[in-house]
Amino acid sequence: MAVRAAVAGASGYAGGELLRLLLAHPEVGIGALTGNSNAGQWLGALQPHLLPLADRILEPTTAQALAGHDVVFLALPHGQSAAVAEQLGPDVLVVDMGADFRLRDAADWEAFYGSPHAGTWPYGLPELPGARAALEGTRRVAVPGCYPTAVSLALFPAYAASLAEPEAVIVAASGTSGAGKAAKPHLLGSEVMGSMSPYGVGGGHRHTPEMIQNLGAVAGEPVSVSFTPTLAPMPRGILATCTAKARPGVSAESVRAAYEKAFADEPFVHLLPEGQWPATASVHGSNAVQIQVAYDAAAGRIIAISAIDNLAKGTAGGAVQSMNIALGLDETTGLTTIGVAP
Amino acid sequence: MAVRAAVAGASGYAGGELLRLLLAHPEVGIGALTGNSNAGQWLGALQPHLLPLADRILEPTTAQALAGHDVVFLALPHGQSAAVAEQLGPDVLVVDMGADFRLRDAADWEAFYGSPHAGTWPYGLPELPGARAALEGTRRVAVPGCYPTAVSLALFPAYAASLAEPEAVIVAASGTSGAGKAAKPHLLGSEVMGSMSPYGVGGGHRHTPEMIQNLGAVAGEPVSVSFTPTLAPMPRGILATCTAKARPGVSAESVRAAYEKAFADEPFVHLLPEGQWPATASVHGSNAVQIQVAYDAAAGRIIAISAIDNLAKGTAGGAVQSMNIALGLDETTGLTTIGVAP
Amino acid sequence: MAVRAAVAGASGYAGGELLRLLLAHPEVGIGALTGNSNAGQWLGALQPHLLPLADRILEPTTAQALAGHDVVFLALPHGQSAAVAEQLGPDVLVVDMGADFRLRDAADWEAFYGSPHAGTWPYGLPELPGARAALEGTRRVAVPGCYPTAVSLALFPAYAASLAEPEAVIVAASGTSGAGKAAKPHLLGSEVMGSMSPYGVGGGHRHTPEMIQNLGAVAGEPVSVSFTPTLAPMPRGILATCTAKARPGVSAESVRAAYEKAFADEPFVHLLPEGQWPATASVHGSNAVQIQVAYDAAAGRIIAISAIDNLAKGTAGGAVQSMNIALGLDETTGLTTIGVAP
Amino acid sequence: MAVRAAVAGASGYAGGELLRLLLAHPEVGIGALTGNSNAGQWLGALQPHLLPLADRILEPTTAQALAGHDVVFLALPHGQSAAVAEQLGPDVLVVDMGADFRLRDAADWEAFYGSPHAGTWPYGLPELPGARAALEGTRRVAVPGCYPTAVSLALFPAYAASLAEPEAVIVAASGTSGAGKAAKPHLLGSEVMGSMSPYGVGGGHRHTPEMIQNLGAVAGEPVSVSFTPTLAPMPRGILATCTAKARPGVSAESVRAAYEKAFADEPFVHLLPEGQWPATASVHGSNAVQIQVAYDAAAGRIIAISAIDNLAKGTAGGAVQSMNIALGLDETTGLTTIGVAP
Repeated sequence: MAVRAAVAGASGYAGGELLRLLLAHPEVGIGALTGNSNAGQWLGALQPHLLPLADRILEPTTAQALAGHDVVFLALPHGQSAAVAEQLGPDVLVVDMGADFRLRDAADWEAFYGSPHAGTWPYGLPELPGARAALEGTRRVAVPGCYPTAVSLALFPAYAASLAEPEAVIVAASGTSGAGKAAKPHLLGSEVMGSMSPYGVGGGHRHTPEMIQNLGAVAGEPVSVSFTPTLAPMPRGILATCTAKARPGVSAESVRAAYEKAFADEPFVHLLPEGQWPATASVHGSNAVQIQVAYDAAAGRIIAISAIDNLAKGTAGGAVQSMNIALGLDETTGLTTIGVAP
Repeated sequence: MAVRAAVAGASGYAGGELLRLLLAHPEVGIGALTGNSNAGQWLGALQPHLLPLADRILEPTTAQALAGHDVVFLALPHGQSAAVAEQLGPDVLVVDMGADFRLRDAADWEAFYGSPHAGTWPYGLPELPGARAALEGTRRVAVPGCYPTAVSLALFPAYAASLAEPEAVIVAASGTSGAGKAAKPHLLGSEVMGSMSPYGVGGGHRHTPEMIQNLGAVAGEPVSVSFTPTLAPMPRGILATCTAKARPGVSAESVRAAYEKAFADEPFVHLLPEGQWPATASVHGSNAVQIQVAYDAAAGRIIAISAIDNLAKGTAGGAVQSMNIALGLDETTGLTTIGVAP
Repeated sequence: MAVRAAVAGASGYAGGELLRLLLAHPEVGIGALTGNSNAGQWLGALQPHLLPLADRILEPTTAQALAGHDVVFLALPHGQSAAVAEQLGPDVLVVDMGADFRLRDAADWEAFYGSPHAGTWPYGLPELPGARAALEGTRRVAVPGCYPTAVSLALFPAYAASLAEPEAVIVAASGTSGAGKAAKPHLLGSEVMGSMSPYGVGGGHRHTPEMIQNLGAVAGEPVSVSFTPTLAPMPRGILATCTAKARPGVSAESVRAAYEKAFADEPFVHLLPEGQWPATASVHGSNAVQIQVAYDAAAGRIIAISAIDNLAKGTAGGAVQSMNIALGLDETTGLTTIGVAP
Repeated sequence: MAVRAAVAGASGYAGGELLRLLLAHPEVGIGALTGNSNAGQWLGALQPHLLPLADRILEPTTAQALAGHDVVFLALPHGQSAAVAEQLGPDVLVVDMGADFRLRDAADWEAFYGSPHAGTWPYGLPELPGARAALEGTRRVAVPGCYPTAVSLALFPAYAASLAEPEAVIVAASGTSGAGKAAKPHLLGSEVMGSMSPYGVGGGHRHTPEMIQNLGAVAGEPVSVSFTPTLAPMPRGILATCTAKARPGVSAESVRAAYEKAFADEPFVHLLPEGQWPATASVHGSNAVQIQVAYDAAAGRIIAISAIDNLAKGTAGGAVQSMNIALGLDETTGLTTIGVAP
């Protein structure tokens, strides 16, 4: 275990999932675990599913605690990563699971997050054109948002092959863990079980500019995105239904071909056989992405649908995948494409 | 109780919900209850939540069994309603909860259902422009599909006010009861709990032509519809996220005004206060429709979202509402806008 | 609507369910609605399923606000009911949905609730021997706890007929609404979906002395109760599995006969036909109690299982039922035995 | 990968979980996969979460197909394992995941399963006294039932230490996958979501004699068992609440000491710290067993509660653990104590 990793924010859902994956990673040893309000507590009480770490106690999140590791994962509230990263030095691999370094456009950042822009780091979605190369050897990684992961993977092949007009309409359903572990009344089990509801409608969700950035970069022109997230009665998983108007001349065959080409060599993206559709249960706990695409000739639209585990490929799995690339390990080390179902 | 009602197909989910509502209807007495494969069984075993009917035994579905009632509700497989209706005579109110008489275009019917078109009956969605008048005094009602109910109500105001381009993109999530009570492996609890998945993608769902018919009639021009249904891990409820490109000059205010006008006098449609969004739990068991609408200026789209109970307003409640109108009763008799939540 | 009712604690789950039932009650008009931390808010935001009350604003809970009503329902935190009740005067019917006046033994109260005992009011479980008579004409009602409702109804016939030894072992599963609407991390949807867990194990649950009180009164001797509650991944419902060692000479027939006799004239308790077992879904939203009983000859135990809706018959429905009796209305007024299923 | 394994019954839930575990097992290569009604189908369609096996086709279950492997796992309907095992020869390790070889008493078998008794194989619950030794080097393993796994582990320490009277009362909640993948109406998602219900009440469940056998062997005297299983609205997991009357002189300390001793060296059983209780979510997908125990002095009972994953430790994980022992591998190879939560 050559690589020693620290996790800042180990008591939340992203931190817990990251630890679950790191425990199974053959090259990583788990070092400091820090928290904020939960510092001083046993991890066994906070993350009772992580039995091998039950006896660990959370330290406060400080640069001292995080120093001396090869990799530091930051699962911190928005706006706090830059200060921590600065103190860690340029040789430490810092993997930010928050939003701070995802956006290239400072104005976008300020409009959606209301604070000064901290900068832009290599973007941890290796399947995007050009992204993998930028991650090799880097010491800074911005892990994508969970929705942008699902949406960008579902739609970029259509834009890469110039099959779609630059107007995407996306509706995604997310499990409740995407909303985090802070106790809020609308996230109570009594409220969410048996219910579907939207939020952040009309362009307000902070993941929207990230989708626009990703798709626009592939399309080579600005892409407008109408994005509606919905909260689904399940703990995990994102199902993203992504549609775009087809360009003239598009056919079911050309769409299929573009997607087959885009994912031919991707270890984690599984373009399903025709006729089979993604289900979030199939990727529960795994780093796999299930994708299927259809061309609706009557409506003139391409419909690409992806299923991911929001905590795995959508957060912690994506973080580990990017870490592997940055460190020169095999990209799939410690990650699985096998879901826990039913 | 002046009105005596028979229910053909009393053992399924639509039939069960209808009986639940009829038991609470002050003007209706429940007569014959018929089934097909379940004929001869106690209703107490088939619908254990309907205690007052526990001792009733299902008869086989025959014209004789259904004769002698003021109203006959048909919850039969597609293609079987016409033959039964014919034998009931023109004076009996026949409310078809199946699809047979919803579509006006015979070619559409044949393309999506693969059998000869039986005809077109007055359409049981009174909130649509012109629909209420057509239901008054009728003796034949075609109850809308559950998805078309949710979608048509969410989008027609935008088309009625000429605010939207004729290209709608719709993604809807439905509870599993919409798929019926027949035991199929993909509908097992083990499969659906914790999972979201799409089906009928790319224009294939049979409810698509019904939406096109409804929206086109309001718009006064053909409306193309991209419709993607998804199966959600909950027993009931539909959340329909409906978007359409806004016409030039549209503003948040003009959109809001159009929706306020459209639903000002509707007893069952509740346009939520700004900032509040629909949730299927809020309409669980009720005939209410929760709607909210937004204008996404950046994406140039109107996003209208509705929540209904697929079995209530989406099927059996809509049937009772239409029955009330047809019989000259107050439209809200026996129906509620109060959901069972949490 | 001769009866005017006020509800203190209208923003919680018990208060919301009570309002749902009162809205359907033909003899009750809804007066003051009060809250504590939510005072000043629209009910439409707090209880979005109660559309007819959406425009009502919560007042602070004060004696003045609650004065001038025929009935006042108290859904307050433990220990607060006595002070409010005192100010309401002896002619107002006060229905306490909290625990304050359930226990007869002051020492029990103090041991389990840690505060001085406020007194004992007539117990709102009319199906218990002698309870109905005590409720007639009363102006004070202590609504039973949800678990004691389910458990006492399941087991009292065995004790009334002297069939069981005075040692009961009970395991019950409850939906999450039983834990209330206060946001706590372990009640998040992410935590409860897909999980079963016990709590209050080993005699610590506050409902235990209430069960002991009820069963002992029927048995005519002290009954020891081992009670384990568990949290189930559903919003509503209690399934109580209640067992007791059978006395010598007990047979399946004598058990069945005792239960048939106990519930022969009860409008809300449904002893299921042999071979059919209770399900919480069947009583969702209803005041019905489903009960089944078996005699396990090999183990020498009686197993009685009940299903109720914890918020309906287990709280608000029981409150309305008792109110009906206290006011001399038909006991079933405004209540239903029809569940909302599936 | 020295060990080549075949799986008969690869399309069901037990078979799918076994394949998930074997894919992660460093010493096992997956050979023949067979099915019955699903023979000829792609595994990708039947088990879409097992991406690495998506291109495998199920063969019919025949001795020829299963020949030539080091280990053959049988996930077959009751009564079919003996005939297959006979043809495989004595040198092949046969791990029967069905019930055929679990019971020692032929009369018990015939009473509960209604067919001739096939025999008794070493019992695959290594944590039971004496069981591990019997598994070493064996070529035949009977994997325990899921409920007996959860119950026997929770209660045997109390009997091993002579703390409990020989009368156990057990109520367990299981996720729906325990009922298998065959489509039955009562297992539909619409039926199980939001509902708890019992089944096999009164001693009728086939797992009862297995519990009696296990506990009696430890107690050294016959133990009577009252067992009530319930179906919970979750795909996986068993929570077993197990109680037994305490013998005179028992104390909380003596109970705790007995459990600490029993599990001190067990790699998969985690006796939780005092005050923490098991939750099925914590062991989701893992081979871990969470156990907590309490002594209820007032009721005079020991309450031991366990949580397992019914498909993992309760079936496929137990099978792999026993295989490891039988083959002389480290018992924990390929198995994890880390759950997938939330």
